[in-house]
Amino acid sequence: MSEVKFIDNGSVTSTPGFKACGVTAGLKKSGNPDMALVASDVPANFAGVFTSCVFAAAPVRVCRKLVRSCATAKAFIINSGNANACTGAAGMANAEKMSELTANALQITDSAVLVASTGRIGVQMPMDIIEKGIKMAAGTLSCDGGNQAARAIMTTDTVPKACAVSVEIAGKTVTIGAICKGVGMIDPQMTTAPHATMICCITTDAICSNALLEKMLADNANNSFNRITVDGDMSTNDTCVIFANGVSGVDLDANADDAAKFQTALLALMQNLARKQVMDGEGATKFVAIEIDGAPDNAAAKLCAEAVANSLLCKTAWFGCDPNWGRIVAALGYSGADFDPDKVDIFYDDMIVVRQGGDAGTPEADLARILQNREFTVKVHMNQGAGEYWVWTSDVSYEYVKINAEYHT
Amino acid sequence: MSEVKFIDNGSVTSTPGFKACGVTAGLKKSGNPDMALVASDVPANFAGVFTSCVFAAAPVRVCRKLVRSCATAKAFIINSGNANACTGAAGMANAEKMSELTANALQITDSAVLVASTGRIGVQMPMDIIEKGIKMAAGTLSCDGGNQAARAIMTTDTVPKACAVSVEIAGKTVTIGAICKGVGMIDPQMTTAPHATMICCITTDAICSNALLEKMLADNANNSFNRITVDGDMSTNDTCVIFANGVSGVDLDANADDAAKFQTALLALMQNLARKQVMDGEGATKFVAIEIDGAPDNAAAKLCAEAVANSLLCKTAWFGCDPNWGRIVAALGYSGADFDPDKVDIFYDDMIVVRQGGDAGTPEADLARILQNREFTVKVHMNQGAGEYWVWTSDVSYEYVKINAEYHT
Repeated sequence: MSEVKFIDNGSVTSTPGFKACGVTAGLKKSGNPDMALVASDVPANFAGVFTSCVFAAAPVRVCRKLVRSCATAKAFIINSGNANACTGAAGMANAEKMSELTANALQITDSAVLVASTGRIGVQMPMDIIEKGIKMAAGTLSCDGGNQAARAIMTTDTVPKACAVSVEIAGKTVTIGAICKGVGMIDPQMTTAPHATMICCITTDAICSNALLEKMLADNANNSFNRITVDGDMSTNDTCVIFANGVSGVDLDANADDAAKFQTALLALMQNLARKQVMDGEGATKFVAIEIDGAPDNAAAKLCAEAVANSLLCKTAWFGCDPNWGRIVAALGYSGADFDPDKVDIFYDDMIVVRQGGDAGTPEADLARILQNREFTVKVHMNQGAGEYWVWTSDVSYEYVKINAEYHT
Repeated sequence: MSEVKFIDNGSVTSTPGFKACGVTAGLKKSGNPDMALVASDVPANFAGVFTSCVFAAAPVRVCRKLVRSCATAKAFIINSGNANACTGAAGMANAEKMSELTANALQITDSAVLVASTGRIGVQMPMDIIEKGIKMAAGTLSCDGGNQAARAIMTTDTVPKACAVSVEIAGKTVTIGAICKGVGMIDPQMTTAPHATMICCITTDAICSNALLEKMLADNANNSFNRITVDGDMSTNDTCVIFANGVSGVDLDANADDAAKFQTALLALMQNLARKQVMDGEGATKFVAIEIDGAPDNAAAKLCAEAVANSLLCKTAWFGCDPNWGRIVAALGYSGADFDPDKVDIFYDDMIVVRQGGDAGTPEADLARILQNREFTVKVHMNQGAGEYWVWTSDVSYEYVKINAEYHT
């Protein structure tokens, strides 16, 4: 297996042949940067996964269409401050107009321009501001603008999120770079057909068909972004897009082993970003991994992991550093999974909490010390099958309530 | 339809032939009352609905057995401060012992004694304290002890919850009385086979077979307790039991119209208590009714209502009196229901918020005024079928986080 190397301060522009920028168009009251543009020098193959919300936002619908109808894409325009969701026919026209304005500004005639939006739902996009922003962005693109772009797509995020990795494939270096945002309305279930507002843009210089890109992106989303939850609320706007411009000369369709190496590196990048999202989850003071094994089957394990990860009682107990495992067993018990409760063991990190469905006798003070850590794992060994699943989640704090009682999504 | 009359300060002891009491055995650090006993003077028919949690507590398992094996019951012993859940074989033995000790203290030989517990999960019941408490309770039963009993079963409840109604059936007065508790770990799905810790004891003086009692109780639970959610967390201990001692002389099995009148009165009582639970929901500052109609079918309506009622983003927005309807459409959209988003209208009380999936243009200040009320209704007219469902829920406040970061369930 080739080693996956993380690149310092990496982002979408770590990948050769991609430029990016972030600008302030004026969509946010705060006056913070609010539009990002990522562009490939040459037509790039591309693929995307999007929210499964019935109320999918206009930009999501536009991207879905482009993924199906276009062979290549050259740019991705993203705004924060307005989600362009639940905006009807006018919203669709505006999302299409954003794509078109960007194509015009970059003189793109032969490739798709993707579009994504995040921010308040139900408000029409102020197209005068958007138009001005697109012009500014087109004139600001640079080979090291990825981290600026990461900053411009933030909403309740407290830190910009970006990552890049490199991996040796077929004797050459392949780079994968990315930026992403999303720390609230986060429980993505992105699929290739049609969850947070999370938005992620990935760039690579591999040569790869759209079909293979889509398969690798969707498979990896199921093992990264689709495994995280902050609040259990899926968004109308979740979008994760990958561009492959081919400039490395490494052809992933030609060799399954090479594709596997690439997919492993891509997964490392996507998991790194997913972890950053949960770490920066709205008001979060804890990063909690829920790991289920020994379940009757994987579906049961998934039900169990998601019930614990989304339990308001578990999440508030974690905030309180309270080793109250009763709330965990209650969540397992109502998850909808069918299992024998008397076989279940539970650990906090490597310390046993529950043995065979009952108190394991570990002193509460020892357990509390684990829960005082910024990160810990809740391991549930169900001891009745081969099913397994994991989820990353955060706690619910006073700050969470403050952010969400005061902020307009 | 006969009129259902609510009785002032009514409770389980409003029903002729029932005595009750609440005592302080010493299970709670606070020193508050912690054991309640309800007893019928004569053997009573009975039925129960219980949690569907896989980790059902020992007292729940004991009650399920008694409901299936005994023709009549005479008493119900309830403690707060300890849930006797996840306590293994010793816990089962202790729950059975609670039943037996109560039978001995009341010299009951011919009828079942039911048992329910609420409080911390995973701790063995201190049987010396229980034994002392049962003796105290047996010596304290009185004809007006219902409200004392209601107080003794409280955990994070801030007010005792009780209710009684009377209804004229077949020329005679039938009384139904009840006490209940439960304001956290509240999302009951109680079924006759095997969901908050909510505990409810209902008494009536009607004559009714166990089978008919069970059917009416289960049907009504689906339109009352099973329609409420505070935190989306179902408990290991939910228990709702009804006793019918027959002293009114009104035979419900003999006449379907009479049974229907009774069931209507019983529903009014159960809805009154369910409402009180949500009103007293942990940290709750809002009572929010979610009403869905025009859905493709009832199942879709239920998915939509429960998604909105349990959305952390909706619940924190309500706490902030923020008319942010984007969070409602997001929840409808990820509910799992399949529907046309462009047909959906949403109202706060009688004020339109969303028309055909988009902003209806009502000034935000007008909407905010509705959300500043203690109670309001979110009405979702889906305009695409005959499916309907409703749920009662509460908001999530700073106080909710405080209670649950500090309290051991």
